[in-house]
Amino acid sequence: MQRGDPVAFGPYWETVRNECTVDIKGDEWMSYLCDTNNLCWYMVPQMRDAILRLHNVVGNVVTKDKFLVLGTGSSQLYQALLYALSPSESSHHPINVVAAAPYYSEYKDATDILQSRLFKWTGDAALYDKDEPYIEVVTSPNNPDGTLRVPVVNSKVDGKIIYDLAYYWPQYTPITYELDHDVMLFTFSKCTGHAGSRIGWAIVKDIEVAKKMIKFIQLNSIGVSRESQIRAAKIIGVICDGYQNLKSIESDRLFFYHSKRLMKERWEKFKGAIEQSKVFTLTKYPTSYCHFNKDFSEQYPAFAWLKCVEGIEDGESYLKKLKIRTRGGERFGVDAKHVRVSMIGTDDEFIELCTRLSNAKRE
Amino acid sequence: MQRGDPVAFGPYWETVRNECTVDIKGDEWMSYLCDTNNLCWYMVPQMRDAILRLHNVVGNVVTKDKFLVLGTGSSQLYQALLYALSPSESSHHPINVVAAAPYYSEYKDATDILQSRLFKWTGDAALYDKDEPYIEVVTSPNNPDGTLRVPVVNSKVDGKIIYDLAYYWPQYTPITYELDHDVMLFTFSKCTGHAGSRIGWAIVKDIEVAKKMIKFIQLNSIGVSRESQIRAAKIIGVICDGYQNLKSIESDRLFFYHSKRLMKERWEKFKGAIEQSKVFTLTKYPTSYCHFNKDFSEQYPAFAWLKCVEGIEDGESYLKKLKIRTRGGERFGVDAKHVRVSMIGTDDEFIELCTRLSNAKRE
Repeated sequence: MQRGDPVAFGPYWETVRNECTVDIKGDEWMSYLCDTNNLCWYMVPQMRDAILRLHNVVGNVVTKDKFLVLGTGSSQLYQALLYALSPSESSHHPINVVAAAPYYSEYKDATDILQSRLFKWTGDAALYDKDEPYIEVVTSPNNPDGTLRVPVVNSKVDGKIIYDLAYYWPQYTPITYELDHDVMLFTFSKCTGHAGSRIGWAIVKDIEVAKKMIKFIQLNSIGVSRESQIRAAKIIGVICDGYQNLKSIESDRLFFYHSKRLMKERWEKFKGAIEQSKVFTLTKYPTSYCHFNKDFSEQYPAFAWLKCVEGIEDGESYLKKLKIRTRGGERFGVDAKHVRVSMIGTDDEFIELCTRLSNAKRE
Repeated sequence: MQRGDPVAFGPYWETVRNECTVDIKGDEWMSYLCDTNNLCWYMVPQMRDAILRLHNVVGNVVTKDKFLVLGTGSSQLYQALLYALSPSESSHHPINVVAAAPYYSEYKDATDILQSRLFKWTGDAALYDKDEPYIEVVTSPNNPDGTLRVPVVNSKVDGKIIYDLAYYWPQYTPITYELDHDVMLFTFSKCTGHAGSRIGWAIVKDIEVAKKMIKFIQLNSIGVSRESQIRAAKIIGVICDGYQNLKSIESDRLFFYHSKRLMKERWEKFKGAIEQSKVFTLTKYPTSYCHFNKDFSEQYPAFAWLKCVEGIEDGESYLKKLKIRTRGGERFGVDAKHVRVSMIGTDDEFIELCTRLSNAKRE
C-alpha cells in the first residue's frame, strides 16, 4: 500500500483476458525503426492510433494539431520534458522546476538525480517568488491528494507548464473539460493498470519541444519497447471497441464503467473505516458533471490523503504500528501529519487496510 | 546502412518464428514489481535465468558472484553506470568519461545531454593525461572498427572501466576468453538482432554500483517492459535449447552457427567488392581460437570500417555520391577519411551495397 501499484483492475482484465491476448512471433518487430514517416520514429502506428482513439472516446483532451511523443512510462517523458523545456545555452542558470505541495514524491529525485546544469528542483510552487525562468508541474488530479489543480506560480516571468494528467481518467474523476494545454503527460499504468508495460505518452503543441524530447529518448533508450506498444495498442483497442459497439456488450463489462464502480465502492468502504477510527480526516472532493459518463459524480482518487487529528504528529509511524504501510507527508513536501494510502492495491489488501484502519483508536 | 539496425538475422528468426512465439494475456504482468527477492526488483525471473543460461552456453563471461542489472537497452544502462560510477558528493569536479578513438558515436551525446555536474565527456582515452578520476569505456569488439580492445589510459589515478561487450558474441568474433571484469554491458539488440525489444543488461561485481544503477533506472523509467522481458527470455531459451539438445537439431539451425555463417559470407563478398573498388582499405583482423565453436576463425564485425586511399579526404561524401549512406569518421572521434558501413542490414541492402561499392573507381 506504500507504492501505487495499480493492481486493482487485474480482476477486470481477467474477464477479458483472451480478447486482449497478443501473440508476437520470433521474427516480428526486430528493427529499431517503426514509422519513419512520423517524427516519433520508434512509435508503432497501431500505438499512435490507439492513443488518439482512446482520447477521442473519453474526450479528456484535445489531440488535434498536436504531436504525440511516446515514452518508457511517463517517468522517462518527464525527464525528456525537462530537457526539452530548458534553455539550451549552457551558460544559463538552471531553470527552476516547481510543483505545488503536496507534490508527487518522485519529482524531486527525478529532477536532481544527475545534477544537471539545465534544470534543478526548487520545491513548492506556492512559495516560488523568483523572477527567473521556471517550469511548473501541475498534476491534476493531484498525486497524492486527488485535488484538481491549476498553475499557482505568480511571477513576472513566463513559466512553462507540464500538465501531468496521469489520473485524468473517468474511474478517478469526472471528465469535466476537454483539456487543451501545450504539454500534457499520460501513463498507461494508471489508465488501465498495466504498470509493467512501461508505456507513457506526451501530447505536445510545439514541434521543437517534441523534437527535443525524441532526441532525449533516442539517447536514453533508443525508443520504447515494441512488445509493450503492441500489447498496449491491443488493450486500448478492446476498451474502445466496447464503447463504440455499445449494443453488443453489457455496460458493466465496459472498462471505465467497471473500474469507476470499483473505485466508488472502495471509497465508500474506506470512508466508513476512517469515520470509525476517529483518528484521521480526509480531503473533501466536489461533485461535478462527467461528460463521459453523463452523470454527476464525486472523485475517487487512486490515493487517499489522510491528515491525523490533533495530537498525532507522525501519520506514517502511527499507521506502521497498525501494520499499514503508507508514504508520509514529508516525501510530498508537507508535514508528517499527512500520509498517502494507495486505493488501487488488490482486493485482499484493500479489505485488510479497511479492517486495520477501523481498529485505529485514539490512544 | 548508416544506422546499425541489426535486421540481418530476421530470416533466421522466420525459420523458428513459431517456436519463439510468446502470447501475453490481458491480465498478465500488470504490476510494477516482478521479483521482490531480487535487488533488481523489476526483472522477471525468467529473464534473469535466460541471461545466465546464455552466458553459460556461450562461455563469454563469468557471471558467478556478480549482480545482474536489467535496462531498457544498453543505452539506459550506460547512463545508469555513469551515475553509479561517479562520486556522489556534489562538490566534486565532474568525473571524466573517455574512450579510445574511434569510439561509438553516441557516447559523447549520451554523456553530455543533460550537462551533469557528476560526469562529462572528455574524448579520446589515448590522449587523456589528467591526474583526475575518470571512467574509461572499453568497447570490445569495438564499434565502429571491430578491433579487440583493452584499457589504454595511463594515469596515476585509478580509473573505472565500463566494458561494453555488445558485440562479444560468436557470430562477430571468436570467443577467446571468459571475461571477468567488474562492469560488463550487453544488449539483446546485437546478440540476436531484436533491437525493437530494448533489452540490455549489465553484469556488475560491486553491489553498491548495482544498487545505484537500479535507483537510476527506477527514477528514469520505473524498470523495464515486462512484455520485452518475457519475449527475450523465450527467444534466448530457444537458442539455448538448440545447443543443449544438440542431437535433436541440425547444426545449421542453431542460431550462432547460422548467424556466424551469414556474417562470414557477407564479409567474403564485401572484401571482394572493396578489392575491386581500389578506393578503400579495410581493418585487418587476427585469427583466433573460438572456445565456443571449437575452431580457428577470423572476426566478422557488425560494421566495416573503411579508410579512403590517398587523395580522397571525405569518405562519407564520396560514398554518398555512390548512394551509399555511411557514418563518417568525425562522428567517431577520428578524421573524415574513415567511414563506418553496416554489415547487418537486410540481404537486399547488403547485395546492393556490394554492387555499388564495386562500382567505386578512383576518379
